[in-house]
Parts: sequence; C-alpha cells; structure tokens
Amino acid sequence: MYLDELWKKESELIGKSVEVHGWIRNHRPQKEFGFIDFSDGTSMKHLQIVYDETSSSFADFVKLHIGSAILVKGILQKSEGKGQDVELKATDITLLGDCPEDYPLQPKRHTNEFLRSIAYLRPRANLFQAVFRVRSVCAMAIHEYFQSHGYVYTHTPLITTAACEGEDQMFKITTFDFDNIPKREGVVDFSKDLFKRQAYITGSGQLQGEAFATAFSKIYTFGPTFRTENSNTKTHANEFWMIEPEIAFCDLNGLMDIEEDMLKSVVRYVLLHAKEEILFLDKFQEPGLFQKLSKLVESTFTRVSHEEVITILKNADVPFEFTPQYGEDISKEHEKYITEYFDGPVFITNWPKDIKSFYMKQNDDGKTVAGVDLEIPGIGELMGGSEREADYQKLHNRMVELGMNPLEMDWYLNLRKFGSVVHSGFGLGFERLILYLTGVENIRDVIPFPRTPGSCEF
Amino acid sequence: MYLDELWKKESELIGKSVEVHGWIRNHRPQKEFGFIDFSDGTSMKHLQIVYDETSSSFADFVKLHIGSAILVKGILQKSEGKGQDVELKATDITLLGDCPEDYPLQPKRHTNEFLRSIAYLRPRANLFQAVFRVRSVCAMAIHEYFQSHGYVYTHTPLITTAACEGEDQMFKITTFDFDNIPKREGVVDFSKDLFKRQAYITGSGQLQGEAFATAFSKIYTFGPTFRTENSNTKTHANEFWMIEPEIAFCDLNGLMDIEEDMLKSVVRYVLLHAKEEILFLDKFQEPGLFQKLSKLVESTFTRVSHEEVITILKNADVPFEFTPQYGEDISKEHEKYITEYFDGPVFITNWPKDIKSFYMKQNDDGKTVAGVDLEIPGIGELMGGSEREADYQKLHNRMVELGMNPLEMDWYLNLRKFGSVVHSGFGLGFERLILYLTGVENIRDVIPFPRTPGSCEF
Repeated sequence: MYLDELWKKESELIGKSVEVHGWIRNHRPQKEFGFIDFSDGTSMKHLQIVYDETSSSFADFVKLHIGSAILVKGILQKSEGKGQDVELKATDITLLGDCPEDYPLQPKRHTNEFLRSIAYLRPRANLFQAVFRVRSVCAMAIHEYFQSHGYVYTHTPLITTAACEGEDQMFKITTFDFDNIPKREGVVDFSKDLFKRQAYITGSGQLQGEAFATAFSKIYTFGPTFRTENSNTKTHANEFWMIEPEIAFCDLNGLMDIEEDMLKSVVRYVLLHAKEEILFLDKFQEPGLFQKLSKLVESTFTRVSHEEVITILKNADVPFEFTPQYGEDISKEHEKYITEYFDGPVFITNWPKDIKSFYMKQNDDGKTVAGVDLEIPGIGELMGGSEREADYQKLHNRMVELGMNPLEMDWYLNLRKFGSVVHSGFGLGFERLILYLTGVENIRDVIPFPRTPGSCEF
Repeated sequence: MYLDELWKKESELIGKSVEVHGWIRNHRPQKEFGFIDFSDGTSMKHLQIVYDETSSSFADFVKLHIGSAILVKGILQKSEGKGQDVELKATDITLLGDCPEDYPLQPKRHTNEFLRSIAYLRPRANLFQAVFRVRSVCAMAIHEYFQSHGYVYTHTPLITTAACEGEDQMFKITTFDFDNIPKREGVVDFSKDLFKRQAYITGSGQLQGEAFATAFSKIYTFGPTFRTENSNTKTHANEFWMIEPEIAFCDLNGLMDIEEDMLKSVVRYVLLHAKEEILFLDKFQEPGLFQKLSKLVESTFTRVSHEEVITILKNADVPFEFTPQYGEDISKEHEKYITEYFDGPVFITNWPKDIKSFYMKQNDDGKTVAGVDLEIPGIGELMGGSEREADYQKLHNRMVELGMNPLEMDWYLNLRKFGSVVHSGFGLGFERLILYLTGVENIRDVIPFPRTPGSCEF
C-alpha cells in the first residue's frame, strides 16, 4: 500500500494489519527497540515504524541502512510519541534494496548547492518533495482553470524556422555532423539538413497561439521554451516552462480581468491541494508564506499606466540607483517600490512602444503600446501581456520599422486580413510562479534537472 | 458573449436580447432575408443568425463576406428551420474585421493536403475544430487520471547531453555559428558552446523519470519529444508529445493493470467531455467511431507472451508477407491478426531481449525481457513499457554488452545502488492516441503545426 492511500483511510486502519513499501529516511536503532522514519514519497507526511526486541529478527532490523528500500508488515496503532498520531508496529521488515553507508543524502542539513550536484537524488529530500509536488499541483491548477473556462489547450510547435523573437536568443537545431558541415560555394547548405532550412527551438508559442485563438477564441499553451541567454543568475535558466493564453474578442482590460482571476484561482487551488507542502515551506523555507498567499487571493490588483508609475517614482523620496524616466523601462528597485506603494499586485499598462515587442497594439498617442506587466510584491514581474496589433497595415509598418521581413511571417500578418479581431494574450513563466508559491529563491531549485550555462548534467 | 456560455444558458435565454461575437462560416443572403452560419469556435455547435429586410441595414448585411468577424445583437428565438433548435434574430450586425473574397477557407470540401498548406487557418474548419478540441480534452483527461491517482507531474528536461537512446536519432542543439564552428587542433571545441558539451534535444524523459519515481513512487511526464527520423509516413513526425509514467513498487503485471485502467478512464473522459466532437467525427471521419470507443472501455485486455503470439501466428491460416519467427519482432500484419484473434486489445509480454532496450528487466530465462507492448484493434501498438532492470550489476553488464559507456550514466546506474526497487513504466505516444480517438489517419492532421522532414512552416 502507498502512504497516500494509507493516510486517506487512516482512522479505519487503526488496529489493522497493514503492508507498506518505501524508503528509510532516518533510523534510530536503540537497545530494546528502534524507530524508522519511513516514506514512499506519496505524501509529505511520513510514517513512523517501530520495532522491538520481541521480534525474532530484531538483530537484522537494527542494521538497516538509511536510504534502503523496505517492505514492512505490521499493525497500525495510535502513537504515544510526539510528532505523529499513529505509527506502524512492525511484525516483519523485508529489505528490498540496500543502500551503502556512503549514501550522499544523509538525514542532515545539506546546502542547496550540494543538492544540485546530486539532482537525481534530491527529490527524496523533504524540501524537494514539497517543491516538486507544489510544481505538479500548480500545473494541474492551471489546466483546471483554463479547461473549466472553455480554453483549448494548444500544443504549439517547439521546432521553428521563424526566428522573429531574436535569432541570437534561440538554440539552433540540426542533424549535421559539426566536423563536416555541408557547404555549397562556401555557404552552409541547409538543403542537406532535415528541414532543408536553418531551424531553431522556440522561445514562445504566442504567434501560433494567435492563429488558434482566431479559430477557438480561447486557447492556452503550456510547454517548455528555451533561451540561449548566457546568464548565471538566480532567475535565469536556458530551459523553462511557459503558459501562454490567447483570447479573441478580448481587450487590455479584459486581459487583466483574466490574469487576476486566473492567478487567484491557481493560488487558491494550490492552498487547497498542497496545503501540507505549503505549511512545510512556511515553516522551513519562507516564514509567512501561507499568509502571503492567502492575502494574495483576497487582494485588489491596482491598474496604473507606465506614465503614472514614472510620476510616482519621480515623486518618491527614495534614493534609487537608477533614475526613473518617462519613455524608459523600470528596474527591479522601481518594481519593488510600486508594489509596496500600492500594497499589493499592480498591473502597469501602456508602455513606451520602443521597449516592447513589435506585435503589441499601438495606441493612438503614437508613443505607447497596449502592453501590461503584472508586478507582484516580493517577486516582481510575474506575467507580461498585451492586446495584439489587429490592424494589418500598422503591424506591417512596425515590422518594417524594426528591420523585420514581413514576407517571412506572412501567415501571421494574414491573421489580420481574414476576419481580424481584437485579441490579447499573456505569458506566465511557470518557474517564476513556483518560486513565488514555494519561497524558494533560486530557479535551479524548482526545476527537476535545471539547464544553465555550462550545466547540463543528468 | 461566447457561444459555449450561450449554449449552457440556452433555455433561459430564449426570447431575450443577446450579443455574440464570432466569425461568418457561411452566408446565404436571399432576397428578403439571410442566414449566417456563425461560430466563435468555443463549441462544435454553430449559431444560425437570421436577418430580414425589416432591418434598416439589410443592404449592408447581405454583403457580409464569409470569414469576416462580426458582432451581432439580436433576440434568441426558437427556430422553425431544420438543423437547429434556436436561432438569433439579428437586430444589429457590426463588421469587426472584413475578409476578402479570395479567403482560402471557403465553406466547401477541401482536401487535408490543401488544409495542411494553410495550417494557420485550418483550425477554423469543422474537422480541425473537432480534432484539436479532442486533443485538448484528452490531454486534460490524462492529467486528471494521474493527478487523481497520486502521481506527481514531472517536467523532465528536453535538453540533454546523454545520448543513450541513440545519438543519430537526436537533434543536436547549439549556439554555434555554422559558418564558423570553433575548433581546437582540428576538433570541434565544444567548450565554446553554451553547455560546454555537445547537447541534444531528447527523445524521452524516462531515465530522469525513473529518478523521480524513486523519490515520489508515482510520477508521470507529459511533454514534447523529438526524433530525427527521415521518414515520410502517415505515422511519423519529428516532434510529438509523449506521456511517460514511472511507478516504483510496481511489476509488469501491475503496470498492465495501470495501462488498462488509464486508457479506459481517458477514453471514458473523452466520450463524456467531447461527446459532440466524437459524434461529429463518427459522422464525417470514421463511421462507428463512437461505438469503437464505447466498446474499448468495456473490453477485456488479453495478456499473452511474445512466444505464445508467435505460436498463434505460425498456426494461423493466413499468407503473411513476413514469416513470424520466435526471437524476432512482429510486423503490422501480425499485430492486426493478433488483435482480431483475441477480438480486443492485447498486451504482448516478455519480448526477446535483443530487440528491446537496455533498461528492461532481464528475465531468468536469459533470453527475454519483462517488456510489454499494448496492441489495440485498428491502430496497432499504442503503448510500450517494461519493468526496469533494478539490479545494478545486470544493468551494468547489459550496457557494456551493447557498447554503451556506463560511466556516462553513472547517476542512472546509481538508482540501483541507493535503495533500488522494482519499478516499471510505459510510454504513450499522444498523437497515436489522438489518431485512435478521432479516426484521423495522418499524424500531420492531429498536430497543430506538424514538423516532418522538409516541412517546418509557420
């Protein structure tokens, strides 16, 4: 029996014979009895196994190593010890898989840096049990939200030949032998590659998502994305997951309604379905986490323009490292000030067009676009979105202005030709949400096997 | 209002004023009135819009083009026409986005080949409305099944340096400029690449999934995978999605229980949540589809060994193109015969070890491995799985036998050193399941933007 089943039926199993399989997380053998901290990883709640010298195999039990896999038969009983309500009084313990004494994951405090070096073992540690279960529950919360609101989950392609978001930020993929790249007249001969063109793995599914939004009205993507950024910070990874909803007949205000509703709904779901994990993280990772999340679902999200934000920052009696400027981006310190100023999440709208992407709807002022960033206290930007430019000519002109070739994206432009509609979408970096939900500080610790510059182990 | 909301509240909205936005799928203007086949893509069920010459804008209405986006105000009323129960009597129609008369997606029968050439528009066609909504619902069914059974959804990495499943089948990824590959002493200098090694995008998350199964007991992956196969058939694509559950404390029989339960549960979910889509596909794509799927959820799955299968095939009074042989793989015609022989799904177990992967548990006979393929009537192999070799030495020896370097996968081997347990897993090709669920024949028609050799458009 797995532990998650056992805990569900706990009360009816007391006094009954039970059989469980799992691993020894800790072991305290004593003279006349012993305690095993036992878990199979299906629940944050471990089971305490007790055995004593009345067992004929007592001498074998005391020798069991930490990390070993065991099968335990026994009687579930009320516990007199503190820390648990019930325990399993073992009548029989079978060693399924031994573990040597030099097992790297000893039951003591390890640094996160060390644990990254044994990423294939760290999910057995309590912190990562909590983090990766929250990650799983949160992914389900996202699917649950969009599916129950009539969105079609769309698998946009990862392999792409359109390098519109900046070729230098995308990994190239190929079947070529690097020792022998085929050339013709001195130039790489991509006609010999599998797709007969230079291909990349993508950093976004948005453009294809827009095509599906003009067919299903409401769609979302949820999949891995890639950036080549050669940056070793706590918030950067070269492979991460993104959620990109795209909604037809939805303007910037409608988009903010959806972002706010979705985020609150997802946090509510996680508080409900991963409560034990959040309480564990509240205790050992970020004191106040549970309250922070509970506050978020009750909070009002402020909506304010980029211009108003700059005015507030300029009037602030704070010595910023970077001086806030109209028409320019804001820095981390500004984001922090603004969420504190409004004491809650803030949607910043209508950004200067020159610091935003080509596909954002151009406002009538000729200077700004209908983009929106959501700033969350304690984490900064969590989602970025916009109304999309729905006018063929305006979009075409903007692409030309930016030196892009509209011919390479004629299908994308054509969405504005064949029944164009107001539509909007946003991107949510999944890992950033998990950092917020778990209180973990480094993106490397919320990804099962993180990929960062120079690091691609396991 | 979106149509999915309208249909939910249909009965209470009759006689009321309603406002909808969407696209003109077809338009039949007549002398004194007109009919618009209207949809916003949120439901298989379209809405019929009627207007007549009593409207002051009648002259404008009749000119509306197919493919245009419109906003319609009117009264929802019972319909006297056949084909629908209600219709919207328009009082006002606003043109949101026009569509030229050369719109490629005219309301007539197009070939699937032509529709692939306009993959950014084809989701607007009824067939693809059904297919991609089934795809979305089925993805949710899979998440729902595993989450409700206590599995942890694990995002295994796509970028990998372990090319254990065959380097020649994997795409290489790089940040190198192909015109200028850095070399040192005549050899490619990977220390200059982002990961400082040759990296690939993966064909499977299984190995990392096993690491997580030894931490959480029950995990599943669901993500994109890649193969470089240069093969232009109806069942091959270079990018596709896979589901790979991995379960600790589970042997081959337990695995088959899970596969059968999961498949029936997913099909049941799709029949319930995408009923209109399945009925549409039953009518226009595969007559008998609904019954086929209903039969599956009630059927008994046979379990038979590879050896028994060969014996059955050898005794069959059928002129096979390929002669069945003990110790060898079976062909499509054999799969077909076997599912017909048992009149239902068949698990074929205990395969000759030389035709299966290195990680499968070696049986005591020294000749076979504890692998299992699930054969489904009409589609052939749908899932492939196995008990995994849990013995360090046996796995090590097998890798050496096959010319693999155990040092490159020491972490994977170490899972057999630190509390090794019986564990099993399977892979389910998501697209193959969608082909089965929709009756569609070509994998290119169940992937939003398919990637196949020479084809990487949009």
